[in-house]
Amino acid sequence: MPHPALPRVRAAYARITKAARPDLWITLRPQADAEADARDVDARCAAGERLPLAGTVVAVKGNIDVAGLPTTAGCPSYAYEPGHDAPAVARLKAAGAVVLGTTNMDQFATGLVGTRSPYGAVRSALDPERVAGGSSSGSAVAVALGIADFALGTDTAGSGRVPAAFNGIVGLKPTHGLVPTDGVVPACASLDCVSVFARTLPEARLALGVLARGGPPVAAPARLPGPWRVAVPSTAQLGELDDGWAEAYEAAAARLEAAGAELRPVDLSPFTEAAAMLYEGAFVAERYTAVGSFVDKGTPDLDPTVAGIIRRARDVPAHRLFADRARLEALRSAALAGLGDADALLLPTTPGHPTLAEVAADPLGSNARLGRYTNSTNLFGLAAVAVPAGEVNGRPFGAMLVGPAGTDDTLATLAGLLPPPVHLAVVGAHLTGQPLNPQLLALGARLLRTNTTAPRYRLYALRTDPPKPGLVHVPEGGAAVEAEVWELPAEGLGRLVAALPRPMTIGRVILADDTAVAGFLCEPEAVDGAEDITDHGAWRAYLNG
Amino acid sequence: MPHPALPRVRAAYARITKAARPDLWITLRPQADAEADARDVDARCAAGERLPLAGTVVAVKGNIDVAGLPTTAGCPSYAYEPGHDAPAVARLKAAGAVVLGTTNMDQFATGLVGTRSPYGAVRSALDPERVAGGSSSGSAVAVALGIADFALGTDTAGSGRVPAAFNGIVGLKPTHGLVPTDGVVPACASLDCVSVFARTLPEARLALGVLARGGPPVAAPARLPGPWRVAVPSTAQLGELDDGWAEAYEAAAARLEAAGAELRPVDLSPFTEAAAMLYEGAFVAERYTAVGSFVDKGTPDLDPTVAGIIRRARDVPAHRLFADRARLEALRSAALAGLGDADALLLPTTPGHPTLAEVAADPLGSNARLGRYTNSTNLFGLAAVAVPAGEVNGRPFGAMLVGPAGTDDTLATLAGLLPPPVHLAVVGAHLTGQPLNPQLLALGARLLRTNTTAPRYRLYALRTDPPKPGLVHVPEGGAAVEAEVWELPAEGLGRLVAALPRPMTIGRVILADDTAVAGFLCEPEAVDGAEDITDHGAWRAYLNG
Repeated sequence: MPHPALPRVRAAYARITKAARPDLWITLRPQADAEADARDVDARCAAGERLPLAGTVVAVKGNIDVAGLPTTAGCPSYAYEPGHDAPAVARLKAAGAVVLGTTNMDQFATGLVGTRSPYGAVRSALDPERVAGGSSSGSAVAVALGIADFALGTDTAGSGRVPAAFNGIVGLKPTHGLVPTDGVVPACASLDCVSVFARTLPEARLALGVLARGGPPVAAPARLPGPWRVAVPSTAQLGELDDGWAEAYEAAAARLEAAGAELRPVDLSPFTEAAAMLYEGAFVAERYTAVGSFVDKGTPDLDPTVAGIIRRARDVPAHRLFADRARLEALRSAALAGLGDADALLLPTTPGHPTLAEVAADPLGSNARLGRYTNSTNLFGLAAVAVPAGEVNGRPFGAMLVGPAGTDDTLATLAGLLPPPVHLAVVGAHLTGQPLNPQLLALGARLLRTNTTAPRYRLYALRTDPPKPGLVHVPEGGAAVEAEVWELPAEGLGRLVAALPRPMTIGRVILADDTAVAGFLCEPEAVDGAEDITDHGAWRAYLNG
Repeated sequence: MPHPALPRVRAAYARITKAARPDLWITLRPQADAEADARDVDARCAAGERLPLAGTVVAVKGNIDVAGLPTTAGCPSYAYEPGHDAPAVARLKAAGAVVLGTTNMDQFATGLVGTRSPYGAVRSALDPERVAGGSSSGSAVAVALGIADFALGTDTAGSGRVPAAFNGIVGLKPTHGLVPTDGVVPACASLDCVSVFARTLPEARLALGVLARGGPPVAAPARLPGPWRVAVPSTAQLGELDDGWAEAYEAAAARLEAAGAELRPVDLSPFTEAAAMLYEGAFVAERYTAVGSFVDKGTPDLDPTVAGIIRRARDVPAHRLFADRARLEALRSAALAGLGDADALLLPTTPGHPTLAEVAADPLGSNARLGRYTNSTNLFGLAAVAVPAGEVNGRPFGAMLVGPAGTDDTLATLAGLLPPPVHLAVVGAHLTGQPLNPQLLALGARLLRTNTTAPRYRLYALRTDPPKPGLVHVPEGGAAVEAEVWELPAEGLGRLVAALPRPMTIGRVILADDTAVAGFLCEPEAVDGAEDITDHGAWRAYLNG
């Protein structure tokens, strides 16, 4: 059953060439090396091995060891040649994934912007004027562009989630400890997590499963039974947001509620206060512990913003760390008490999506803003899932679900409720009471309203057996035709379309109020010789008539 | 956001009339009563209450107390007027669901066929020659026909899963104790569970959440991390199956593997041996404890098969129960050891789907066969989810995932991996390297192969901006056109279709090998005045040419 690896690897390199995005990579492996790995995977499958990631290609953030490639953490002069793969990488390979290379990142994983790198600023996959987000910038864009199926990031302050939001993909920030961080250049060693990017939730969950393999048993916390419960802070507490983001956030919350989740208010202040402590307080000193002695050497390829942050961290007194730890513990208690028995906290992943110019104009301020909602997650020992949740001005809006340690699966399940249902206009055999209506019902559809199309259509009785209606948009001489508008899960519409018989088609149907929804149409050929029944105004009127 | 209840209730009654299936109901409430409840729900929503089940209608199995309706358990002479709702019913109502009535069932929940009722044998929603399955027959068919959004069943030996399988819907058999069984006429009081039917997994999970509300905290067992692990017995151990069912079962297992799950062998014999004990051993005596004194009265509306089973149970000696309990405990230990760290056991829900005639010809044997895989679940204290998993000869094939107590959510997540991905043929802007290809990738698509259509198409360059290709099936004079076939999640195809701009459509495209898949076509109007570019053979050749 698995997909063969070799053509997938070749397609990935073709896409890399076509994309012309050298900013994504720190070390791209020679195609021949990746192809050799692919042949090995295909041979293992042919020999009967069952590899859950066979046929997939993966990109690895530049601060994670891949045997044979230099580990740079975004700083060429820091590079070392790791003797073996980080366990996270080794697990992906053992499961059949082929590594394409290591990806660009904010140097030493210090940043949420994706621009703090001597390898170049990384642009969003979806808008070249805007940043990719960081620090796992190249990994996220490689996934968003379809080059890699999965990518590894790391996440200390949000580095595995902010780039997911800015590139319209999924980012899983697992419970701390679920995926080993051995072989990862530390940012804040006590907080770092290896994270996963993928384009869909099931793919991301599969990769996380592989990454977590071999660890100790994991138990989700006991929950009080009942419908999903989601804590939703007021938009006022979210602080200033980009235009349209408050509305997108509220729409995401409304979709969870429409899916049956109970929304409840929560005080966000313990989260935002802790978030501010990550760089402003004593915790930043752990970054100096990790790479301070290297940064003090002052090599010319240090990013000046990153080097400044780490150097300033040298002078933080330890007594302040004790004080900050006490304050953090109090905030954490308040945060968890505020969540109560909620399954998750819904937040925007970031307050907005800056341009490269905005980040260049205010490197520290723009970065600090981006971490407003993500910084607290690891400080509080929580898990998080970042997913695309709509669009604002044609760009993705990212939402995040945050929950207690061990709730990774629950958060992914909840995130699966965020995408909205879709609408479908039906004009014939799928109308209420007509023979194919049970198909719609079985797919989870419910009737929203009975309507008519805009007066721009002709309706035909096609010469199918049994006769079906053919709705045809016409440049002139059209009329309004009765239509029912149904709401159904996107999966249901996909299954309906996948089973659609000729000559029926689904396209965009314009309704009387000039809105347009997916709806039944037909192939051009079907109209030839069909009876024009537009004057009946409705398929049911024709049948009765 | 919630859907209004009153029109939903009216639509349900219209559908009840249209369906003309009096066999589904024991007591259908007067429409005016349900409408009064609906108005109350709508008023509560208008007053600001947030009700997760507002706008839904529910059917309740005839052995569960609904205040104001007789509880019959499928036996008119047994009926009593409950003073109040069973807690399960009360929780649904409190969450905004409107009860339509009580549904037909195998009498005293003793049967898996749906024919053992003085209210009439219940036929499958999908094939009038075949049984609906039981004992929760009417509830399952009411959901399958779109009359009810959810329905309550009960499940002792499989009564909440067999009818799900036979009607192509979802049946959740929760962990014992998660939903209270107060107010339920017992079948085997120590084993009975209240179960849920719905058409989609998210709807079923929502209803289960509501039903479980208010209970003590529930903890899923700790699991060893790693990809999903599913135990799959050999088809030989499944025993005899209806034609085509072994293949359907293997296909379901293959889909789980394609989604990344690790399949592992398991010895099914402890499960099947325990299953046989449910009716053949001493456990059946608990049915006499429940209703034996009533059955001994010999009222004429007793189902003779049911009465025979219960009367024979009177003579089971208690020492045999002690012996059976010891044997069951040994089998349970063996079964759990066999599952090891698997997340779930995949089984067909039943070995086949009998006709009414087959059940009438062999009432006991046909029933016993149906419980081969379901009977052991409650004896072992496990949870289960039954879902549609493909078709055999145009009828649904039902698969079941069984797992340890507390894994209800995990089982539902795994069940969500069972539906297959879908295929889509693209001929233009979504081809590899073309501008809209990233849309496909973002939806989780992967390229399966490059192909051509059957030689029955013309290709046009439409006068859209930018120009798009219009593929048109023609009765003669057609040619083959280059097409790529992509595989993607059904949800992804649904989202693609929902966002499709005019004049593009998706219908069925015939490929060179005469298979047909969903693929891009266009509206008839779009072809007028468009340039016929069929001679290029491919959109990319036209663009390059």
